[in-house]
Amino acid sequence: MEVDNNKQEVFQRKKNAVLVNGVILNGPITDSKAGEKFVEEACKIIMEEVVQKAADVTEKVCEWQPPEKLKKLLDLEMRDTGEPHQKLLQLCQDIIRYSVKTNHPRFFNQLYAGIDYYSLVARFITEALNPSVYTYEVSPVFLLVEEAVLKRMIEFIGWKEGDGIFNPGGSVSNMYAMNLARYKYCPEIKEKGLSGLPRLVLFASEECHYSMNKAASFLGIGTQNIYFIATDERGKMIPEELEKQVQRARKEGAAPFLVCATAGTTVLGAFDPLDKVADICEKYGLWLHVDASWGGSALMSRKHRKLLQGIHRADSVAWNPHKMLMAGIQCCALLVKDNSDLLKKCYSAKASYLFQQDKFYDVSYDTGDKSIQCSRRPDAFKFWMTWKALGTAGLEERVNRALALASYLVGEIKKREGFQLLLEPEYANICFWYIPPSLRKTEEGPEFWEKLHQ
Amino acid sequence: MEVDNNKQEVFQRKKNAVLVNGVILNGPITDSKAGEKFVEEACKIIMEEVVQKAADVTEKVCEWQPPEKLKKLLDLEMRDTGEPHQKLLQLCQDIIRYSVKTNHPRFFNQLYAGIDYYSLVARFITEALNPSVYTYEVSPVFLLVEEAVLKRMIEFIGWKEGDGIFNPGGSVSNMYAMNLARYKYCPEIKEKGLSGLPRLVLFASEECHYSMNKAASFLGIGTQNIYFIATDERGKMIPEELEKQVQRARKEGAAPFLVCATAGTTVLGAFDPLDKVADICEKYGLWLHVDASWGGSALMSRKHRKLLQGIHRADSVAWNPHKMLMAGIQCCALLVKDNSDLLKKCYSAKASYLFQQDKFYDVSYDTGDKSIQCSRRPDAFKFWMTWKALGTAGLEERVNRALALASYLVGEIKKREGFQLLLEPEYANICFWYIPPSLRKTEEGPEFWEKLHQ
Repeated sequence: MEVDNNKQEVFQRKKNAVLVNGVILNGPITDSKAGEKFVEEACKIIMEEVVQKAADVTEKVCEWQPPEKLKKLLDLEMRDTGEPHQKLLQLCQDIIRYSVKTNHPRFFNQLYAGIDYYSLVARFITEALNPSVYTYEVSPVFLLVEEAVLKRMIEFIGWKEGDGIFNPGGSVSNMYAMNLARYKYCPEIKEKGLSGLPRLVLFASEECHYSMNKAASFLGIGTQNIYFIATDERGKMIPEELEKQVQRARKEGAAPFLVCATAGTTVLGAFDPLDKVADICEKYGLWLHVDASWGGSALMSRKHRKLLQGIHRADSVAWNPHKMLMAGIQCCALLVKDNSDLLKKCYSAKASYLFQQDKFYDVSYDTGDKSIQCSRRPDAFKFWMTWKALGTAGLEERVNRALALASYLVGEIKKREGFQLLLEPEYANICFWYIPPSLRKTEEGPEFWEKLHQ
Repeated sequence: MEVDNNKQEVFQRKKNAVLVNGVILNGPITDSKAGEKFVEEACKIIMEEVVQKAADVTEKVCEWQPPEKLKKLLDLEMRDTGEPHQKLLQLCQDIIRYSVKTNHPRFFNQLYAGIDYYSLVARFITEALNPSVYTYEVSPVFLLVEEAVLKRMIEFIGWKEGDGIFNPGGSVSNMYAMNLARYKYCPEIKEKGLSGLPRLVLFASEECHYSMNKAASFLGIGTQNIYFIATDERGKMIPEELEKQVQRARKEGAAPFLVCATAGTTVLGAFDPLDKVADICEKYGLWLHVDASWGGSALMSRKHRKLLQGIHRADSVAWNPHKMLMAGIQCCALLVKDNSDLLKKCYSAKASYLFQQDKFYDVSYDTGDKSIQCSRRPDAFKFWMTWKALGTAGLEERVNRALALASYLVGEIKKREGFQLLLEPEYANICFWYIPPSLRKTEEGPEFWEKLHQ
């Protein structure tokens, strides 16, 4: 921390100093000029080393080092005294140097990639303003932005009205939905808990995201009470199998309450047949949640939204614009068809210090009590900024382009020797084997697969 | 989106264009030069309108507008076509103008305030790199940073070893702890759920944070199964009352498993007597969680850490460096004394696509399976940067200064007519009444309080 060294000023301050418990209260804490200069210099490094290099395919995606070696290369230790700004700027360089550049043109793998200049600016604004989104009085703009974004996402799902909330991850959105479905099924659980109740059962495909397991255990439902439904050769839930499992749960005396369909599975990119699944949910009175964390973005494309045919019949949808739409981690919405304030009823704890009911504005904008979080980040804002910048047409183009690239790659795989497509993809996940020359003449059998895995 | 208009280049591209499903694959998606320029110009606005004004007490904290009026002032609508950069920069100005400047010297109220230049830089780096912290291969630096920060926080709690994870909020940390205590009590619940089990009961003071209610309902325990313990006149849990309630739960045939003590309550800033609470937990074999989301920062001060006397006896601690230590929202750790990998055992879902066990490095660095999240932000990093910049001594000074300021304010309240201190504070929360002149001669009775509330 650099302090102001102007002697006269220091003398003046000492003369008027208010000393409490050994702390000079009216002294300078930080030198704001030096602080601002530090931020400016760091921003230059960020622009040069991250933002500009995002366009440079000749740069490395990552300068990879194993953990023990990287610890030696980085000065991670936190000491008793602070470091000067020059040392800190060097640390910033090092941090960037050894980090994975997820905005690099050659970064693949994690269901997101690339740089979006608009969401990036929104995120810089968020960090500078450091808001928390729970009440209108402390986050007026971001609450209105969230409302506007949710409204448009709801339109794209095809609901006339609805509600929603942005969460720190699709996994958390799935948990929200599971809890909401349970609340709808039996509101008493909120106060009384699950003890002594019949066993709740939910259904998801074998190919569903692992967050279903995390959610079922976290919520006290238990992972054994997810009945996994067999999928067809393309990774899609088989509706007939779903119905059989619902009937099985009923026969067992359990309480089936929820089907989690997946729109865009993690590995194969498969879309469950939503219309048929919705038929079964209607027949048996089950909540239909669609985990469209990955596949939801296809809703923005008139060409590809048919992948999610029937999604308007869902009771809730998880959709992450931080993936294909590049809104930056994290940007994840849970959308709910119900418009009777179910989200608030289910999640409210009515903290009187935060959510007073006698404020001087419409307190329905205080959305904090719809959340399991107290502090919450304005994640809708980055998606909003990108949407403003590109327009709906630009977002649509982004989806169409991703799927056209996937289609092109499939063509190349088919043409190239030694590559074997696992299945004809319907989304952006392309699963293939690379068969090394030594195995190309071996017949596909146990021996072949063992060697290939090695 | 501004595209490159160089005619010759466009012609060249068209000639070699790869057209798939109507999309030119090798065409430019965005003009990176224009994008970089946009980011640079926006950064200038952020520096001028947010960062620099954080030091200017003559600026407004917020240009407040009621919801309906603010909607008219802001152009929130997302249209089919995008907006040009100039319009977007104007939008950034508007967003900032109508937002609350939480870094303003006069922003109080939300248990955090002010600007920290170092964490801000860390947060800008995070946004530019856009990492997700689950596996070492994709977040090498940030996983090592998290490990280093957790290690130091564990030292400050006074444990010899331990484990931990950064979460999106103290509320979520409290949920983690509750689930962890439950898992320790009965690991079978993870698979089998709570149905048919005895009623689990936990204990927290009447003054505890509302996230206890949210956690108990979310986890299927039920809010009625939190037994709220009476507090003394300073808002501290009364240990004798706790013991009575534990005995009551046992008599009822319920299964007490957890005490959530609070170190720094939300309203009064009270610290539960941890040593005495720990005695009871030991006696009855209960997990002790300390919600030190707010009060944990006092651990950094040799002068004030006695407020948390006994915290080393806790099984888990929630501590948010984004509050008094100013690390930026959100920066919240759950720390766990257990070192038998309980966190991983409790939370793992063993997703094989992400957490392969045959990687070419030590997979214990893949901490993603300790989390309920899949994508997770590198929140430890911003605290690390501040710690590097200020040193432990600078963080200590920050705490001492906050509490000295509180102490000064208490003195002023006592001196000033019409102000009435509610109770002598032990932390930074100062509760007082302002008695308007019309009431200063009224006796304190039902009529007095009714008028004062109005």
